[in-house]
Amino acid sequence: MTLPRRTHPRPLDIANGRIDLTHGGGGRAMQQLVEELFVAAFDNDALNQRNDQAAFDVPPEMLRGGRMVMTTDGYVISPLFFPGGDIGSLAVHGTVNDVAMAGARPLSLSAGFIIEEGFPLSDLKRIVDSMANASREAGVPVVTGDTKVVEKGKGDGIFITTTGIGVVPPGVNVSGDRARAGDAVLVSGTMGDHGVAVMSQRESLGFDTAILSDSAALHTLVADMVAATPDIHVLRDPTRGGLASTLNEIAVQSGVGIALRESDIPVRPEVKGACELLGLDPLYVANEGKLICICAPEHADTLLAVMRAHPLGRDAALVGTCVEDSHAFVTMRTAMGGNRVVDWLAGEQLPRIC
Amino acid sequence: MTLPRRTHPRPLDIANGRIDLTHGGGGRAMQQLVEELFVAAFDNDALNQRNDQAAFDVPPEMLRGGRMVMTTDGYVISPLFFPGGDIGSLAVHGTVNDVAMAGARPLSLSAGFIIEEGFPLSDLKRIVDSMANASREAGVPVVTGDTKVVEKGKGDGIFITTTGIGVVPPGVNVSGDRARAGDAVLVSGTMGDHGVAVMSQRESLGFDTAILSDSAALHTLVADMVAATPDIHVLRDPTRGGLASTLNEIAVQSGVGIALRESDIPVRPEVKGACELLGLDPLYVANEGKLICICAPEHADTLLAVMRAHPLGRDAALVGTCVEDSHAFVTMRTAMGGNRVVDWLAGEQLPRIC
Repeated sequence: MTLPRRTHPRPLDIANGRIDLTHGGGGRAMQQLVEELFVAAFDNDALNQRNDQAAFDVPPEMLRGGRMVMTTDGYVISPLFFPGGDIGSLAVHGTVNDVAMAGARPLSLSAGFIIEEGFPLSDLKRIVDSMANASREAGVPVVTGDTKVVEKGKGDGIFITTTGIGVVPPGVNVSGDRARAGDAVLVSGTMGDHGVAVMSQRESLGFDTAILSDSAALHTLVADMVAATPDIHVLRDPTRGGLASTLNEIAVQSGVGIALRESDIPVRPEVKGACELLGLDPLYVANEGKLICICAPEHADTLLAVMRAHPLGRDAALVGTCVEDSHAFVTMRTAMGGNRVVDWLAGEQLPRIC
Repeated sequence: MTLPRRTHPRPLDIANGRIDLTHGGGGRAMQQLVEELFVAAFDNDALNQRNDQAAFDVPPEMLRGGRMVMTTDGYVISPLFFPGGDIGSLAVHGTVNDVAMAGARPLSLSAGFIIEEGFPLSDLKRIVDSMANASREAGVPVVTGDTKVVEKGKGDGIFITTTGIGVVPPGVNVSGDRARAGDAVLVSGTMGDHGVAVMSQRESLGFDTAILSDSAALHTLVADMVAATPDIHVLRDPTRGGLASTLNEIAVQSGVGIALRESDIPVRPEVKGACELLGLDPLYVANEGKLICICAPEHADTLLAVMRAHPLGRDAALVGTCVEDSHAFVTMRTAMGGNRVVDWLAGEQLPRIC
């Protein structure tokens, strides 16, 4: 029996190499990609087991009286790199945030990659390194993953699906159906930064003022808020569809109206300017590092103070109130003094914004 | 202030409708798709909360002394519908199996959909219904999900990424690095059925004998095995790259050689015939309802008996032995009496087989 020479393969040519179909085939090329690019970047005990699943301890006392949460999001953003972030950091922040919006502490992430044949390895490494950095900064490890490759023309560079799990502390019960008439509506900062940053890159507008995406992991902000006031009614991050669509969702889920005051909603002047130029309404533009908090009115001041004391909540504001309304309308007193309905986003304002 | 009429939108036209970009936009069209198609099919308490994440109880006694597992897989199979299954059932079975291959009991699944503009709603409904059925049959609910839409030509119909979590019972420690020289290598049934079923559909070969995919959820089989013999060393499902690539992975992880006996490896005659026609080796062809089990030799008979008593393990067989080998080669005594090396899959034998 002739034995093959089991020499080590040459390392991946990150600078000039490209993804081909063998990188998704389950054989030696995939193994090499996983080792040299993914395991090297994400490096953690669970992933380093190199099994098809990650096993890890959850101290039972963490779960005592608490609940688990699970959330998933696909990221198809175009372009892949944008001012203030990229698809890799976004895929970590977005999913950490969806865990945190249950008032939960994130435990771990998984990452599934669907890559188009021909995608540059250098871009893949940049994205994976950015994910790994975001994950380390957030303290939430990517414990398991998967890579698939589709033929050129059957994808668009790279799509990433991340899933997160976490644990809700005892006594915390945050849900979109818990808003009550009289509740205060808070936001953690300026609206529309992410969407405008991505659009400016896409349209090559080159604004004088660089507008950066607000992409950030909000779980430490949420932890501070929950520690101060466990009885928060609703938390949600206004991503696709922006503040307007997210508040409409909550209004319908809770069966309340929401009355906003336009002059209290923080929007950066440069974002306002860009929105005018692009024909967009900042209330419908995606955010990736902001949250909406709805709480009993007596907790609003405490929560605002906690938010403003956190680097990611410095511009937090009270922007409205929940009201009795069997139609569950979101309305707004405009800066001009009129009143208008803030309806759902009807069509697609900004495709592939996350 | 003029209020919009909040009439109910017309229900989705499943028979003739198609996905457009608004279905991924975060607005009303997405809301409708999620309600009428996804929530209606998957219907469970956690999902019905309609939050961006699912919250559920995990009884602390389940975790006492045990560990959690998390796993993710992207499904890009082409064609979407194949003899014996479709991308929807496959996305449930494949991820349930990756949880089970840790010896774990699956708790819940998430599902992320990336859909190409123009995709028929009727196909989407067929796929989602199939996922929901597979999930109900397995007793593992899809508790949360996400939908993104990409422009026509930037995807390929539909990609699905499912993530699963589960709990490993106390005393169970299954991992790819635990194979030892002397261990028995078992498989739960015939090799190559899934890959050949998909290829036959793709190439429109129309074999006389219908070859069906073996796609199935193996967690109840694993539960029976673990109950009989908690000290199983390795479990893994030989999907992409087939038995040969999976055994090579295990051999390297564990630092052992693996000696197979060709005549003991179960392969259906019609699969063998189709492989000859297609120029494929059944040992490299994907399976989606089979497992490899490596255990101490004294447990082999018990485990074989347990497997054969389960409907998904009727054709279980002892196919080889782990041996001392610092090179971690997989070798095979052929039916002709020779010996050959069973190397890694070098290239891409069957693109997009899962």
